[in-house]
Amino acid sequence: MNPVLSDLQRSDLNHVWHPCSQMKDYEEFPPIVIKSGKGIYLYDENGKEYIDAVSSWWVNLFGHANERINTALANQASQLEHVIFANFTHKPAVLLAEKLAEITPEGLTKVFFADNGSSAIEIALKMSFQYHIQNNKPNKKRFLALTDAYHGETLGALSLGGVGLYNEIFQPLLLNTVRAQGPDCFRCPFNEEPSSCSTPCISFIEEKLIQHHEELAAVIVEPLIQAAAGMKMYPPGYLNKLKQLCLQYDIHLIADEVAVGFGRTGTMFACEQAGITPDFMCLSKGLTGGYLPLSAVMTTDDVYNAFYDEYETMKAFFHSHSYTGNPLACRVALEVLRIFEDEPYIEEIQKKGAYMQELASKVFNHQPYIGEYRQTGLVGAIELVKDKATKEPFPSGERIGYKIYRIALEKGLLLRPLGNVLYFMPPYVISKEEIKRMIHITNEAIQQFFKNSQADSVMQEV
Amino acid sequence: MNPVLSDLQRSDLNHVWHPCSQMKDYEEFPPIVIKSGKGIYLYDENGKEYIDAVSSWWVNLFGHANERINTALANQASQLEHVIFANFTHKPAVLLAEKLAEITPEGLTKVFFADNGSSAIEIALKMSFQYHIQNNKPNKKRFLALTDAYHGETLGALSLGGVGLYNEIFQPLLLNTVRAQGPDCFRCPFNEEPSSCSTPCISFIEEKLIQHHEELAAVIVEPLIQAAAGMKMYPPGYLNKLKQLCLQYDIHLIADEVAVGFGRTGTMFACEQAGITPDFMCLSKGLTGGYLPLSAVMTTDDVYNAFYDEYETMKAFFHSHSYTGNPLACRVALEVLRIFEDEPYIEEIQKKGAYMQELASKVFNHQPYIGEYRQTGLVGAIELVKDKATKEPFPSGERIGYKIYRIALEKGLLLRPLGNVLYFMPPYVISKEEIKRMIHITNEAIQQFFKNSQADSVMQEV
Repeated sequence: MNPVLSDLQRSDLNHVWHPCSQMKDYEEFPPIVIKSGKGIYLYDENGKEYIDAVSSWWVNLFGHANERINTALANQASQLEHVIFANFTHKPAVLLAEKLAEITPEGLTKVFFADNGSSAIEIALKMSFQYHIQNNKPNKKRFLALTDAYHGETLGALSLGGVGLYNEIFQPLLLNTVRAQGPDCFRCPFNEEPSSCSTPCISFIEEKLIQHHEELAAVIVEPLIQAAAGMKMYPPGYLNKLKQLCLQYDIHLIADEVAVGFGRTGTMFACEQAGITPDFMCLSKGLTGGYLPLSAVMTTDDVYNAFYDEYETMKAFFHSHSYTGNPLACRVALEVLRIFEDEPYIEEIQKKGAYMQELASKVFNHQPYIGEYRQTGLVGAIELVKDKATKEPFPSGERIGYKIYRIALEKGLLLRPLGNVLYFMPPYVISKEEIKRMIHITNEAIQQFFKNSQADSVMQEV
Repeated sequence: MNPVLSDLQRSDLNHVWHPCSQMKDYEEFPPIVIKSGKGIYLYDENGKEYIDAVSSWWVNLFGHANERINTALANQASQLEHVIFANFTHKPAVLLAEKLAEITPEGLTKVFFADNGSSAIEIALKMSFQYHIQNNKPNKKRFLALTDAYHGETLGALSLGGVGLYNEIFQPLLLNTVRAQGPDCFRCPFNEEPSSCSTPCISFIEEKLIQHHEELAAVIVEPLIQAAAGMKMYPPGYLNKLKQLCLQYDIHLIADEVAVGFGRTGTMFACEQAGITPDFMCLSKGLTGGYLPLSAVMTTDDVYNAFYDEYETMKAFFHSHSYTGNPLACRVALEVLRIFEDEPYIEEIQKKGAYMQELASKVFNHQPYIGEYRQTGLVGAIELVKDKATKEPFPSGERIGYKIYRIALEKGLLLRPLGNVLYFMPPYVISKEEIKRMIHITNEAIQQFFKNSQADSVMQEV
């Protein structure tokens, strides 16, 4: 039976092709029309409230319709909404670049702006490639990425990805990436514990570097959390070793902090926890606090200087997007960084994170279909398994996560899982009381699903 | 001698890596710090005024800091700045999609949103490729593009480009694009005139299609104007023939209207002038009137339906960006389309265009170093040549365009040429008086340059 549709829903289905969606699913489960947002809440056209537990694809930091950010945005619009960014500049971009250079790891001094995470990754790839040519190493033209990696979906960025759902069908269009097995703490092949391990799995990368270092321009990694893979978490020690290997083999390290930057992991940037400076750091998502598309590639003087020469040498880096350095987005991002300066959010993330971890671990860790509850900073993940002892996953065709997501939505919680992994990545303004409610509703949804699903299998057996 | 720098200029040079720039050029010619904009004008930190004759990289339509758009933006921010766009939707996106389906050529019914032009191109490539697989033509995995084409700079989009400046160095990272010689009306190999020709140059594409049609997924083209190539213009008849060829050989036609859409060529979309419906139309730049990064891929029911099936068939199109369908950008774009509805801008563009063409032709066409002045809609281009009779270009190393640009900037006009081509692409709110001033200053800058340069060569000869 098809649901009754509002005018906006009907028109949406007539004209909008949604991302990351089989549109046929929308027949039975039409798009939810959001009318407004405030703090951690979204409100649909019928006034129903949803907790935005995933910060609308990991972008929102300080709540929806944030008044301080709105004021900054309106002021900027009244002054200057946009200006070409070649030969021209403006205060919001300059102050933002200054602050980014200040707060990112020591040595990341230069900022190249773009509009989204994928574009930032493409810029880092192109810069690394061109750098090596200009340093007389033209053979360095391949990239190494990890299994289960996700770095965006334009073809260059997609080439680096290791999640088949996104790139398998597109293989004939993709770069021939060198793939190394990444860390997998939940199903550790060395039977180590993340809290105590010495990351022996770095050997998988090392082997590939020994084999391919002469043709490798850069290694790319999502520091601490492979997010789209299902919030796979690993310890900072892995990054230290990786940085050492990159130095040893003369290969750039690209840190994709698009998802984990700006406090998510409990420090401003995930790389801080390893005390390393990558050659490139890609930033987006939280950069504008969930307001506008903007991204930045941070890099070093060493990289910058390899492109700095007389025009005639043709060493310049040619890459541009029309809205590069957009003043509205830069002004919003600047306000986000000022909020971090004025209010102790990093501390808050750590405190709220500790509370969330304690409560969620208690609620989830001992359930039969939950392999583990894991957390880093304010990212918590519930890994559903068919068999707790063997960690056998549910077949992806069963869409367990999707089904629980739909139950949770009915209960007013937006979870948007990744396969068999439900996760929390709430805006930083969430209160302890709201964390408790988020965990409570998630648990209810899980209980309801497995009760129904047990009833289903009983019915099938009868 | 290095110029005296303001604090913002100094900080910019310390931290910002500008797009499409040899940063060493900025030593002698530091970035101009724009403080505010209004209408067609930009104002720097010293209060100096510049006419924005290139609409800040071809994006601005209705003037800087437009009050009507600002109000719409502020209202939207107070309601809902952003929400995840998978399973969720909102009024600005739905109304925008509805209007885009209404105003684009008949048959373009579906809208897929992204953040910038490059991403839109990548989406069209991926959709076309996957469409053919799902229609049992997996061999169709290459793309045909024209010489001198420009379609963006992420690796997929860059693969299509035919301008060496942007992609030569990156060849090892690019797709193996089938390249066909594009129209070149200024140096027509058939010695035809654009006003009367029957586009015999379509044969260059036809030859490639005969040879490669079985492996081709799509042909991509910039309708009417190859913009980054130096505003190379060609007649609509070319597009009609191309559309017929695409139908004949079962190949998608992708119209890249990123630069030419939203009135630029004198009609809302350039494809209208040929009366064709492409399979994909990529839109960005003017879509938000020059405010915010947003792009849209328009496509047909035929394409949409090839992806529409049960989830388990895995036919869905997986591509997403975090800010896909951003409510702020969609609301601004919606206001842009409402301005087009409420005010007769298309008519204005035609009238102002006629005035500009008459005046500019008179001023420029008979000058010794100008090969031609050409125009389509509100895009005018001056092609500088070393020898008017042979049309021999100035060597690119002489940077003639760049030097004239710098003279014009001193005089308060922002031109930003493409090699030897100076061009006008002003906001639609420009008045006739301002068009006259723009042409006047450009002429002064050209005169001044060639007078100096003649003096230089006299000096060299002495």
